[in-house]
Amino acid sequence: MDPNIDQYAFNPVTPDIVEALRGICGPAHVTANDPKAMRKYAHDQVPGERYAHMPDVVVCPRTAPEIAAVVRLANQAHIPVTPRAAGSGLSGGAVPAHGGILLSVERMNRVLEIDVANLMAVVEPGVVTNLLDKALEPHGLFFAGYPMSDEFCFIGGNVAENAGGGRAIKYGVTGRYIHGLEMVTPTGEIVQLGGKRVKDVTGYDLVHLMVGSEGTLGIFTKIFIRLLPRPTERVAILALFETAADAIAVVPQVVTAGRLIPSAVEFMDRFCFGRTVEALQESFPTQGIGAALLMEVDGNRADVVANEADIIRAICRDIGAKAEFVAQDAKEIERFWKIRKQIPWVLKRYSPVQSIEDIVVPIAAIPDLLPELERIGNAFDTMIPVFGHAGDGNLHATPVKNPAHTMAQWEELLGPLLTQMYQVTARLGGTISGEHGIGHKRRDYLPLVMEEAQIRMMRRIKQALDPNNILNPGKIVMLE
Amino acid sequence: MDPNIDQYAFNPVTPDIVEALRGICGPAHVTANDPKAMRKYAHDQVPGERYAHMPDVVVCPRTAPEIAAVVRLANQAHIPVTPRAAGSGLSGGAVPAHGGILLSVERMNRVLEIDVANLMAVVEPGVVTNLLDKALEPHGLFFAGYPMSDEFCFIGGNVAENAGGGRAIKYGVTGRYIHGLEMVTPTGEIVQLGGKRVKDVTGYDLVHLMVGSEGTLGIFTKIFIRLLPRPTERVAILALFETAADAIAVVPQVVTAGRLIPSAVEFMDRFCFGRTVEALQESFPTQGIGAALLMEVDGNRADVVANEADIIRAICRDIGAKAEFVAQDAKEIERFWKIRKQIPWVLKRYSPVQSIEDIVVPIAAIPDLLPELERIGNAFDTMIPVFGHAGDGNLHATPVKNPAHTMAQWEELLGPLLTQMYQVTARLGGTISGEHGIGHKRRDYLPLVMEEAQIRMMRRIKQALDPNNILNPGKIVMLE
Repeated sequence: MDPNIDQYAFNPVTPDIVEALRGICGPAHVTANDPKAMRKYAHDQVPGERYAHMPDVVVCPRTAPEIAAVVRLANQAHIPVTPRAAGSGLSGGAVPAHGGILLSVERMNRVLEIDVANLMAVVEPGVVTNLLDKALEPHGLFFAGYPMSDEFCFIGGNVAENAGGGRAIKYGVTGRYIHGLEMVTPTGEIVQLGGKRVKDVTGYDLVHLMVGSEGTLGIFTKIFIRLLPRPTERVAILALFETAADAIAVVPQVVTAGRLIPSAVEFMDRFCFGRTVEALQESFPTQGIGAALLMEVDGNRADVVANEADIIRAICRDIGAKAEFVAQDAKEIERFWKIRKQIPWVLKRYSPVQSIEDIVVPIAAIPDLLPELERIGNAFDTMIPVFGHAGDGNLHATPVKNPAHTMAQWEELLGPLLTQMYQVTARLGGTISGEHGIGHKRRDYLPLVMEEAQIRMMRRIKQALDPNNILNPGKIVMLE
Repeated sequence: MDPNIDQYAFNPVTPDIVEALRGICGPAHVTANDPKAMRKYAHDQVPGERYAHMPDVVVCPRTAPEIAAVVRLANQAHIPVTPRAAGSGLSGGAVPAHGGILLSVERMNRVLEIDVANLMAVVEPGVVTNLLDKALEPHGLFFAGYPMSDEFCFIGGNVAENAGGGRAIKYGVTGRYIHGLEMVTPTGEIVQLGGKRVKDVTGYDLVHLMVGSEGTLGIFTKIFIRLLPRPTERVAILALFETAADAIAVVPQVVTAGRLIPSAVEFMDRFCFGRTVEALQESFPTQGIGAALLMEVDGNRADVVANEADIIRAICRDIGAKAEFVAQDAKEIERFWKIRKQIPWVLKRYSPVQSIEDIVVPIAAIPDLLPELERIGNAFDTMIPVFGHAGDGNLHATPVKNPAHTMAQWEELLGPLLTQMYQVTARLGGTISGEHGIGHKRRDYLPLVMEEAQIRMMRRIKQALDPNNILNPGKIVMLE
């Protein structure tokens, strides 16, 4: 439970408030006094109950004016509002940490427009990311910033967390493709920032201040997404190495000597790769393999893409890869990716009690980071399997509870373990989140990686835009 | 002269202040009471005197701590500080509109580091953009966000204005490559935002709030720039069309049917193309040519790039291009670009009195915009030649004073003309600046393209971070 839970002294959600919310959103779309139905809104994908919190009322508005009315009411009554998309986040961003109103955008799930001439899609925040992709496919276009959870996450959540995915090394993360946002401000105004224009320097870049603001500065009601031509050709390479250092050495070589940016460079350490190959009953060798890289190249010409794959394979061989496998057709590519995508579930099966981390360091610092993580794991008698987006220096180092430890021991060691992990990351020029966000899960660790002056700037911006502190309070930073 | 000039009631720069500044920066680097030496700091590249203003003192600090000391002094004494890079801007961003201290970063001109393993350069703000490019060339890398003025602009100014250039359609603008900033805050603290990590969602994206903030929210002292592999192959295509509509129709076709993003798509209308061909004594036909497109493709394989050029040529022919010319070697490519780059100078020769505009619309709206611009020009008996980045919808429509008009007539008609131009732009989903910024040149037109709620958000952010309003006051928005 959050120790600051009552610091802000919000007002309770009274029956009158619930009635007013029913008037705004319609009675069918407001849920109170029903713990069973409300339970799922107390969580995101962070394991355990430590960061969960029940809302007092759940509202599912359909329109921007409804959301604006809810937010104005919340300001008047001094009740917190926590916006929620699919709840697939990993930092508590969508959890109503101070109770109050949970505002779900699940009913705002329309693709409003696919504007081919302008290469823009306009969508509501509750659209499942993968459904947008399916809608774009017939047009030969795609949204290149999608995250790995695209089969269930919502676009609204992708934008709120500035989610990244397996193709960020080439295509960047969600934010690069967001050119406009219609949103409700923390004071209940509807405003459109940006739009379908590709370039815009008309004043401060509020669009990208909102991207990644985790629902603390606004609730998105329309999202303008820039589209790219969809690559027709893909080749995946799975390369196996004796050591993690060998695997990591491939990355800068590919970009500098190979002069190319792969569309994916995913890293799996010995444990993640071995366990997942075993769990999937896959045939890839694991004996003597210290690390695996899953790389992909894409484009529109088969010969070019094949040539790029050859360049990558040659670099892998030069660096001493023990084996490389190449996948050219969609089914085989999917087989390779399945190993990478199954890792979180395999780790959960090994131990459901764990802390999925999201540290990011300059790419050249990964070889220095890995032994440090091993050292920290040993010091706490806790395994820290590592997988993630090596091409971005973004690693999901995931401490998992030692089965020999009690829950009390785990709870006691996790804080000091994370502190050491974050300190090492900071010392290597890194930070604590590359794509999952801060929420209230990482909030109190922020001073380990960020100067007080920067935290103060964030606090001042929050106070300036949300004077009553009602929008997703307790996330990213606490106010004074 | 700015009508709000004394609204903020700043204090004068006294001899004591000048002495204190000399103590901070060294006597050789502080200039006061020398109008001749200070004259160049009263201007950027905006023609005429309307937006010029003399500083009271010019300081050229060498280090971040010196800048921090200047800013703290300015806060105590309530004197404005206007940061300046090369002064090549086009919206008055670097002009000390309220006098006070002009802070030039011209002595902070070192490339601090080219970190090949991390694909990052770290530079001081006073580095000439093109000199960074020359330093990167031997490493096979480049900074892809550079603007057209790269031979004289400074990186610091590129970041402050979020400048774009001729390759933005493929590579995006400056901001995409900025991963970290060391800066002095408006209250005189030194803070480092971001760094060499590629992904970062640790709190609000302050880096990109600072990019394009035109020196109103911070003074950059170190800039972390992400580098890309430098393309080895380029082909340029100059295609000539009977009408602007034909030329513009090429752009979405190339991206959707051609499935490729050219590295440049530059538009030149009849007047710009014809006059410049004539001024350069070039041999390209101009008779019956209503518009020209200069396109470029780049990459690492000559056959692929040549093939992409063929795709583009075929699309041009399908749409009815009157002629196309192809340049494959660097010298010939430079010859094509010279036409595009000389346009502003040719227009200045035609009439030095002009207003270089920077409107941007969704790309598909360009065919609707062009006749509107012609209509407005006719209504004011003033030519509005159009050139610019068609691939981004960003057009430098440039009203030039009719030689038959007096200066008084020009001064009188320009405001209403710009108002109509901006209103049309807004109606088409566009805005008033794609890459040049707002400064004080466009500030008072902001309400034509931006809702009051958004302007208020910008004002609140400015007030939150610069409580004494001393950093480049009067730019982007006036405070209340």
